[in-house]
Amino acid sequence: MNDIETIQAELRKFNQERDWDQFHNGKDLAIGIATEAAELLEAFLWKRAEDASIDKIREELADVLNYAFQMADRYNLDIKEIMLEKIRKNAEKYPVEKAKGSAKKYNEI
Amino acid sequence: MNDIETIQAELRKFNQERDWDQFHNGKDLAIGIATEAAELLEAFLWKRAEDASIDKIREELADVLNYAFQMADRYNLDIKEIMLEKIRKNAEKYPVEKAKGSAKKYNEI
Amino acid sequence: MNDIETIQAELRKFNQERDWDQFHNGKDLAIGIATEAAELLEAFLWKRAEDASIDKIREELADVLNYAFQMADRYNLDIKEIMLEKIRKNAEKYPVEKAKGSAKKYNEI
Amino acid sequence: MNDIETIQAELRKFNQERDWDQFHNGKDLAIGIATEAAELLEAFLWKRAEDASIDKIREELADVLNYAFQMADRYNLDIKEIMLEKIRKNAEKYPVEKAKGSAKKYNEI
Repeated sequence: MNDIETIQAELRKFNQERDWDQFHNGKDLAIGIATEAAELLEAFLWKRAEDASIDKIREELADVLNYAFQMADRYNLDIKEIMLEKIRKNAEKYPVEKAKGSAKKYNEI
Repeated sequence: MNDIETIQAELRKFNQERDWDQFHNGKDLAIGIATEAAELLEAFLWKRAEDASIDKIREELADVLNYAFQMADRYNLDIKEIMLEKIRKNAEKYPVEKAKGSAKKYNEI
Repeated sequence: MNDIETIQAELRKFNQERDWDQFHNGKDLAIGIATEAAELLEAFLWKRAEDASIDKIREELADVLNYAFQMADRYNLDIKEIMLEKIRKNAEKYPVEKAKGSAKKYNEI
Repeated sequence: MNDIETIQAELRKFNQERDWDQFHNGKDLAIGIATEAAELLEAFLWKRAEDASIDKIREELADVLNYAFQMADRYNLDIKEIMLEKIRKNAEKYPVEKAKGSAKKYNEI
């Protein structure tokens, strides 16, 4: 079993033991991801990046990832596949020769 | 190389080719995760979970994961380690006998 | 002084007394609005709308509005003017005869 | 009619003409506020505050406010009252002598 499958198996076990699958519809999982992403963001509020607490970043990033992995599982999406596919699409949207050193959006370059 | 490392290597290559590491400080990566999480959430706006577009979910979930993996890389956090650690912490916060079948927060159970 | 001006004057006084204007650049105010919006959203997580706590909604909606009013002030935007302008724009994007009873986005109707 | 009431009356008219009140339950309005807050935040992604587009800020801040005003209306919350109440509460949480010049959270000061 690879790493991603190992983690998803742990998440599945955690939820089954608590009978929580009933709550984990896609809409609430999306709300869960968004609220955890905001808690991660709060680590940087009124601060320079370098002053944020690494402990808080660690905790909140793990929460974002845990919900995101559950969302993938809920919709039978293969995490590695959809991530690599998106990198390929972004490579087309942001060709090296146009995007190099620029933070502009693809529709501005 | 396991699957998480494979994906992170692809992301690193993508960013190096475009010289984008200069933009990827923690604060902006956290903003990136939050804005992609909101695009994922938008797939469910004014809708029941079952009416959301699976294509949009696939795209936006991949975006959330891609930024989250880059954030982990930026802070040298081991994704598998922080995720499994968080599952263990949540297992303590939500003991099976108290949490089973309940969607309450840990400070309410 | 109308209502919006009264509230903005109170916010301005609150921040001046604490010497907080130095932190209130647009980027952090936008982060503040997004994190409070997520706390409001959390009131509905794993719940039907009618089961959310009205006390939490009241608190978090006030936080969203307080930051949003400060953001308007920071950029010298007239709240009433930009809101009414947006309603007019939306009225053009969503003409009554096409949008009536439909939750579709303007580019789908 | 004061300015907040004027805006809420316009929003109510807009929604009634389109028969949109049926979609505007609290949960989806909260999602709407969060997604618009993220679009506002996106104006600052990979940028210093001073490089964000004022036109985009104006548009997206108006969207946040429009949904927030509709949310208040949906729950019969008096916007001026809840905002001033929150400023009073924050004044207690952040007493001037402790909070002056500090961006720390109330539980850290």
